[in-house]
Amino acid sequence: VATKRRTSLAIAVDAMGGDHAPRAVVEGAFAAATQDEIPVLLVGQEELVRQELARLGDPCRRIEVVHAEEVVGMDEPATAPLRRKRRSSIRIACDLVGKGRAQAVVSAGNTGAVMTAAMKAMGTIPGVDRPALAAILPSRSGRTVLLDVGANVSTKPHHLRQFAVMGHLYAQQVLGTPRPRVGLLSVGEEEGKGTDLTREVFRVLKETGLNFVGNVEGRDLFAGTVDVVVCDGFVGNVVLKASEALAQMVREMIEEEIRSSLRTRVGAALVMPALRGLKRRTDPNQFGAAPLLGVQGGCFVGHGRSSATGVRNAIKRAAEFCAHEVHEKIREQMALIHQQEVAVLGAGALEAEAN
Amino acid sequence: VATKRRTSLAIAVDAMGGDHAPRAVVEGAFAAATQDEIPVLLVGQEELVRQELARLGDPCRRIEVVHAEEVVGMDEPATAPLRRKRRSSIRIACDLVGKGRAQAVVSAGNTGAVMTAAMKAMGTIPGVDRPALAAILPSRSGRTVLLDVGANVSTKPHHLRQFAVMGHLYAQQVLGTPRPRVGLLSVGEEEGKGTDLTREVFRVLKETGLNFVGNVEGRDLFAGTVDVVVCDGFVGNVVLKASEALAQMVREMIEEEIRSSLRTRVGAALVMPALRGLKRRTDPNQFGAAPLLGVQGGCFVGHGRSSATGVRNAIKRAAEFCAHEVHEKIREQMALIHQQEVAVLGAGALEAEAN
Repeated sequence: VATKRRTSLAIAVDAMGGDHAPRAVVEGAFAAATQDEIPVLLVGQEELVRQELARLGDPCRRIEVVHAEEVVGMDEPATAPLRRKRRSSIRIACDLVGKGRAQAVVSAGNTGAVMTAAMKAMGTIPGVDRPALAAILPSRSGRTVLLDVGANVSTKPHHLRQFAVMGHLYAQQVLGTPRPRVGLLSVGEEEGKGTDLTREVFRVLKETGLNFVGNVEGRDLFAGTVDVVVCDGFVGNVVLKASEALAQMVREMIEEEIRSSLRTRVGAALVMPALRGLKRRTDPNQFGAAPLLGVQGGCFVGHGRSSATGVRNAIKRAAEFCAHEVHEKIREQMALIHQQEVAVLGAGALEAEAN
Repeated sequence: VATKRRTSLAIAVDAMGGDHAPRAVVEGAFAAATQDEIPVLLVGQEELVRQELARLGDPCRRIEVVHAEEVVGMDEPATAPLRRKRRSSIRIACDLVGKGRAQAVVSAGNTGAVMTAAMKAMGTIPGVDRPALAAILPSRSGRTVLLDVGANVSTKPHHLRQFAVMGHLYAQQVLGTPRPRVGLLSVGEEEGKGTDLTREVFRVLKETGLNFVGNVEGRDLFAGTVDVVVCDGFVGNVVLKASEALAQMVREMIEEEIRSSLRTRVGAALVMPALRGLKRRTDPNQFGAAPLLGVQGGCFVGHGRSSATGVRNAIKRAAEFCAHEVHEKIREQMALIHQQEVAVLGAGALEAEAN
């Protein structure tokens, strides 16, 4: 299967996912195919998708349309692609990766449904009990990987240990951080601070051989003092959504303030480049999407409000992920950890822990 | 005791708390005493405090200095004011409220130590199992009360029910929201979303008679769609610290972008009012401090980096809290709830729940 996948570099894109689908998705995919030269399989209601493509002019040989008659709505249950919506764009796009026709899937649709379909179609990497959704946040000095941001609301210490290993590999392979600093999200820096769960995870992470820097606080997410931050999916989801909304509110507030203090067009024109610069640094569309780590292939979940630029960037991130063979490296690392643990603990203890 | 307290409107201020103490604290207290006409008891190392007061010119008759020889450091355990540091400014300032010499305490010092000393000196309101620290966040249409933000890292459903009642009363009495919308912080709007704890709390909050609007997500904190948001102290603390750091980072980024795009002093001068306007709307110093709700008196914990303006605003918030008799209203409401519950459940069931 691994060989088969490497023959094709295509990214399967859910044309029907997101608030601005299919238009923004098709535009973003078109830009990725033409300007970034990434082969794309556009999955969705064929007639609609072809209409949008026709609007964009010349046909692009790097785009192939794959028909999917159904669409999973944003409010449908995460299990929809497994049951009532087996012919949905989300399910079919994920299946293309499972069958080796694409290396990764990109969707700005129903997050839970994308994760469920990806796990079903691609399978989970051996040694990973739960895949984790990772957000790539802007910080003062680069990027911080925060995981899990919503794949799992209740987690055990060994799940967080697996998240730490996967986040470390993503930061190292894709973001180019040679020795990523890994922190545990808590409410104080000292080892004893936090909940029963975080105290146990602290102990577990100290023993991993990762560059574990201890507990970090909410403010460290943006400080550039840590590269990978692990937490359970409930906390991660709340903090991610709050951060996105706050960054947007602050951007809107500064625009309002500038409008009300600069009454002239000349004044407003003067500060436009600064506002664009700010947006480039803080808008989630700029990074594009969150990788689901731990499945046997690439899976990127975009923001529901993804613009064409957001979709294009998500496709670029997915192509980078495949080029760096991140999921293969996670698989190798998990196999190595498993061997070491069997040597130390014996297989029985591990089975008990996994339950 | 209640009568005795009402005879004095003074606010006890910990002159030694915060990164810029005692200078910023004394300046803020001086402004509150002279410009806002609020009587202040300044608690700290007398010589240092008097030096700072002398620097500010004329003596103010509304300021009294109360000597405290010790200072609790930011890294000391929360129990320091009860044990090794009984002569600390935090402990003595809280004791002034306990003894009825002041109505409220304000400190920008060690949050855990302030909470511990306040609970010890003032006592907890009957019916409140755990006091909660509430953050007052800026939103698109006003203010959102988020609690708990760090007083309790592991909570039970009935604690969150008490937080909801206290947050409701704060929003109604102090922020002037007639019928505050109360939400439960979770990872999806539907009733079934979240953890075992949030699902149970959802059920409990539906039965309170509060204006419960259901689950809210991280983005709702700033959207102006909800007035009071309850969560456990771990999640609340992480999201508060992340939000403060992000707002500051975005403000710094816009300043950098403006500096690099506007090379002239004229251009920079043009946008200064807009930046000041943004800061006024998003800087934690503007609201001043977080109330600790559920103790028998006023207690406001300021940000460690509080400026003189932050301290002055914290003192104003504490004076408002006392003028609206919020803690008396929480006491009345808790007594009422207790009576109703005894009538419905019988006292035995309540005792079992409290443990």
